[in-house]
Amino acid sequence: MVKTPKESLTVLTDIVLPGETNPLGNLFGGELLARMDRACSIAARRHSHRIVVTASVNHVAFSKAVSVGSVVTLEAKVTRAFKSSMEVYVDVWIEDRESQHRTKVNEGIYTFVAVDDMGHPVQVPQIKPETELETSRFEGALRRKQLSLILAGKMKADDATELKALFN
Amino acid sequence: MVKTPKESLTVLTDIVLPGETNPLGNLFGGELLARMDRACSIAARRHSHRIVVTASVNHVAFSKAVSVGSVVTLEAKVTRAFKSSMEVYVDVWIEDRESQHRTKVNEGIYTFVAVDDMGHPVQVPQIKPETELETSRFEGALRRKQLSLILAGKMKADDATELKALFN
Amino acid sequence: MVKTPKESLTVLTDIVLPGETNPLGNLFGGELLARMDRACSIAARRHSHRIVVTASVNHVAFSKAVSVGSVVTLEAKVTRAFKSSMEVYVDVWIEDRESQHRTKVNEGIYTFVAVDDMGHPVQVPQIKPETELETSRFEGALRRKQLSLILAGKMKADDATELKALFN
Amino acid sequence: MVKTPKESLTVLTDIVLPGETNPLGNLFGGELLARMDRACSIAARRHSHRIVVTASVNHVAFSKAVSVGSVVTLEAKVTRAFKSSMEVYVDVWIEDRESQHRTKVNEGIYTFVAVDDMGHPVQVPQIKPETELETSRFEGALRRKQLSLILAGKMKADDATELKALFN
Amino acid sequence: MVKTPKESLTVLTDIVLPGETNPLGNLFGGELLARMDRACSIAARRHSHRIVVTASVNHVAFSKAVSVGSVVTLEAKVTRAFKSSMEVYVDVWIEDRESQHRTKVNEGIYTFVAVDDMGHPVQVPQIKPETELETSRFEGALRRKQLSLILAGKMKADDATELKALFN
Amino acid sequence: MVKTPKESLTVLTDIVLPGETNPLGNLFGGELLARMDRACSIAARRHSHRIVVTASVNHVAFSKAVSVGSVVTLEAKVTRAFKSSMEVYVDVWIEDRESQHRTKVNEGIYTFVAVDDMGHPVQVPQIKPETELETSRFEGALRRKQLSLILAGKMKADDATELKALFN
Repeated sequence: MVKTPKESLTVLTDIVLPGETNPLGNLFGGELLARMDRACSIAARRHSHRIVVTASVNHVAFSKAVSVGSVVTLEAKVTRAFKSSMEVYVDVWIEDRESQHRTKVNEGIYTFVAVDDMGHPVQVPQIKPETELETSRFEGALRRKQLSLILAGKMKADDATELKALFN
Repeated sequence: MVKTPKESLTVLTDIVLPGETNPLGNLFGGELLARMDRACSIAARRHSHRIVVTASVNHVAFSKAVSVGSVVTLEAKVTRAFKSSMEVYVDVWIEDRESQHRTKVNEGIYTFVAVDDMGHPVQVPQIKPETELETSRFEGALRRKQLSLILAGKMKADDATELKALFN
Repeated sequence: MVKTPKESLTVLTDIVLPGETNPLGNLFGGELLARMDRACSIAARRHSHRIVVTASVNHVAFSKAVSVGSVVTLEAKVTRAFKSSMEVYVDVWIEDRESQHRTKVNEGIYTFVAVDDMGHPVQVPQIKPETELETSRFEGALRRKQLSLILAGKMKADDATELKALFN
Repeated sequence: MVKTPKESLTVLTDIVLPGETNPLGNLFGGELLARMDRACSIAARRHSHRIVVTASVNHVAFSKAVSVGSVVTLEAKVTRAFKSSMEVYVDVWIEDRESQHRTKVNEGIYTFVAVDDMGHPVQVPQIKPETELETSRFEGALRRKQLSLILAGKMKADDATELKALFN
Repeated sequence: MVKTPKESLTVLTDIVLPGETNPLGNLFGGELLARMDRACSIAARRHSHRIVVTASVNHVAFSKAVSVGSVVTLEAKVTRAFKSSMEVYVDVWIEDRESQHRTKVNEGIYTFVAVDDMGHPVQVPQIKPETELETSRFEGALRRKQLSLILAGKMKADDATELKALFN
Repeated sequence: MVKTPKESLTVLTDIVLPGETNPLGNLFGGELLARMDRACSIAARRHSHRIVVTASVNHVAFSKAVSVGSVVTLEAKVTRAFKSSMEVYVDVWIEDRESQHRTKVNEGIYTFVAVDDMGHPVQVPQIKPETELETSRFEGALRRKQLSLILAGKMKADDATELKALFN
C-alpha cells in the first residue's frame, strides 16, 4: 500500500502563552520541541493508523525567536516510510498580526516507529511524494537514516553509499 | 579563558507524572525533549554566564520507553565551545526502584548561542575536555557542526574536511 | 472591506493527554472549552488583524465523549462580523485511528470583540459567506445576537424582529 | 426527593497566575471557562451524588477583564433539575485588594447530565428554589432548555410554549 | 484595628485531576501543599489588604490519602496576626460522592508577611478570635512562633516563656 | 541494614518559569513547596527502595525571594530513619548568572513513610550520618519527631525527654 505525504498533513495552530517564555520574552526551545513532537506523532499516526512512539529527533534548527502572544502554526507531513519507521518533517510558521505575513521560524525532522498494542514494531505503508519539495525530502531521508545509524554506531561509514556520494 | 565540561554539569532529577504519558503509559517524547532542553540550557548558561537561546537540536535517540512513576535523571555538560555557540550533551537515565540499577534511555545533543540583553551573540570561554568520553565528544563536535552547516545549506560538502575524513 | 469566512479558518489538531481527563477517562468539558476559545480567538484575530477578547460563549453542545489518547481537530471560522464584534463557529472532530473515520463531537459559538492596545473596541471588516453552510450560519448570527441582548436585558423581545419571526 | 440550590453551593476561590493571561495581561477567556466548568460540575455532583458530564454551555457573558494577580471567586449552584440533566448557574466575582469591594465580572449557565459508572443517564432529585433570585432562575431554566432544543434542531419553535410567551 | 478570623475565610473547592497523582493513584503531597499555599495567601491578603509572601510552613500533617477524582475543599483563616506577619490555618476535607459525608484529610499552618509594592514589611490588623477553636489556635500561635524562632536559631530556648510552660 | 545520607542525595536543578510567579515577579511559595516535595520523595525512595508517601512537612522557611528566570537547585538527603518513616532535609540554592555565586534561599524538612503496593507501611534501613552537618541533623530529628507527636496530640509533653532537655 502506498500513500501520499498530503494524506498525513497535520496542522496545529496555537498561541504562545506567557507561561512558556524565557527571560527574553520568547517561546522556550523545549516547549516548541514538545509541540513539534505532538504534531509529528499525529502525522505518523494518520499515515500508519497505528500507535506511534518517538524514535529520534534528527535535526531541528531554530532560526528566529518566537515572542509571547504570537500565533504559531505547525505543519507536519510524513516524508518517507521505511519498514516500521517513518520520517516526519514539520515546518513552523509565525504570522504578523497586522499584515498577516507568514515567516518560517523553525524546521524539524523526527522519526517515529509504529507499534502494536504490546509495543512491538509493525509494518507501515510506503510514501509516494507528489510535489518537488516532497520529492527532495523523500530522497534525502535515506541519507539521513544512514547518518543516524553511523552516529549510533550501528552502521560503518563505508556502507553508507547514499551518504558517501555527498563527499565524492 | 578555558573551562572544563565538569564546571557546567547540570543534574535534573524528577518523577514522570501521569499527565505526561502516552496511551502506552510511557513518557511522551516531546515532554522529555523539553526537559532535556531546560537541563542543557542551564549547562550552557553555567559555562557562559550569559543568557542562552536554543540554536538547534542535533540528534536525540530514544532507545527505551520511560514508564509513568519512573525517576528520570538528566545529566548535561558542555562538550565544546565555538565562537558564541556551545554544543551540550545530555545523558538520560532511569533507575530501578528495587535494585537502584541505572539504565541509560536516551542521549541528546543540543546547540545553544550565548547572547547579551539585546539578544546579540557574545563570545564564550573555550572547553578543555578532561575524561576520555569528554575528549571523544569534543572531537566529534566539529564534525557535527560541519554536518549541521551542510544540512542547512551554509557549507559545501567539499569544505567539510573533518567530516570527509569519515568516508575515506 | 469584506472578507470570506475561509480567510480566517484556523485548525488546531492535538492529542488528549491523560492529565486532561475525568474519572470516566474522557476529556474534561472545561479543557475542551479552553481549546475552543483559543482556536476561535485566532480566527477572530486573523479576520480583524487586531487583539481580540472573548465577549461571550453563545452555545456549546457536547454530543459525544472524547476519550484519552484521541486526536481532536478544531476548525474555527468567523461567521459574521458586526461593528467591532465577530461571531465565530468552531466544529470539533475526533478521528478513529484505524479507519481514520471522522466523527463530529462538539460545536461551539463564541463572540469576540476587536480592541486596540488600550482595550478600546475598533471596527472590523464585514463577512461575505461563500458556501451554503456559511450562509446559513451568517443568517442565524443576527437572531443569536438579538437573543443574547434579550438574555442580558439589553433589548426588549418586541424589538427582536429577526428572532420573533421564528415564533410566528 | 427535593433539594434546595443552597445544598449544592460550590465556592472556588483562586488567584490569576501570569501563565493564564493574554497579551493585555488579563485572564484568558478559555481558562475562566475551564474553571467555571469545574465549579459547576462539583455543584451538579453535590446535587445528584453521581458522576456528571458536561452536556452544554448555554450562555457565558464576559463583562469585565480580570487582570493578573486578581483573586477570583466562583459561586456555582444548581438552578433546576430535569429528568437526568441539571442546569447550573455560576457567578464570578473579583475583589479589590485594598477596599475588598467585590465586582461581578462574569456569569455562566452550564448543563450537566448525571450518569452511572457505565456512562448511562440516571434520574436526579428535583430543585425547590428558596430566594427570589433562585426562583427567577428556576423559572427561566425551562425557556432556556426549549431554546437549546430548538437551536439543536430537536424541537419545533411552535412547541416551545414557554419561550413563545416571551414574544407575544 | 481588629478583625475576626471569619473575615478572612477563603474556600477553594476543586477536583483532583489524573495528572496530579502518584503511582498509587493519590494526590501528590506537593500538589496539595501548593493549593494550600494559594488558599492561605488569599486569606492573609483578605486580612491585610496587602500583597503577601510566604514566610514559612510551620506544620502540615497528611493523615489520609486523597484519590483521583475526589472533590477537595480547603478552608483557610488567619488565626493570629503579629506585627507584619500572620499565621494562617488551613483545613482540608474530602467528601464522599454518594453519602456526601466529609472527612478531614489534612491540616496545615502557614505564615505570611504583608509587604508594600517594594517588598518591605508593613503592619497588619490584629485578630480577635470568636469561636472556641479559633481561640485555641490563637493561643497556640505564640508558642509556634517561639518554636520557629528557636529552630531558626533566632531565639534562645530560655526566652521562649510560652513554650517552656508546656514542659513544666 | 545501614545506609549513609549521601546514598540518597537527589539534585533537582531547574529554571523558574514566568507562569510560576506572583505579582512581585517571584516564584510562588506553593510551587517551590511542590518541587521540594518531589525532590524529597525521590531521596526517600532511593533510601528505602519503596513507594513513599508524604506524611508531614515539619518546617520550611523562606528566607529570600526567587525571581523569574533564576536557576534553582534543590539538594535533598535522608537525615534519619525510624521504623517506616524517614526525615528528609532539602536545601534550596539560587546562583547568580554572572558570578555563579550560590545563595541559600530556603530549607525544608519533610517526613515520608515507605509503603508496599497495598499502601501498608514497611520497615526501612537505618541512617549512619558521616559529616558534621549530617550528624547534627540526625540528632535533631528525634526532637522534631517528638514535637510533631505533641502537636498532633499523640504524645504528652512530659514524655518528650529529648525535647524537654532543650528547656532545662
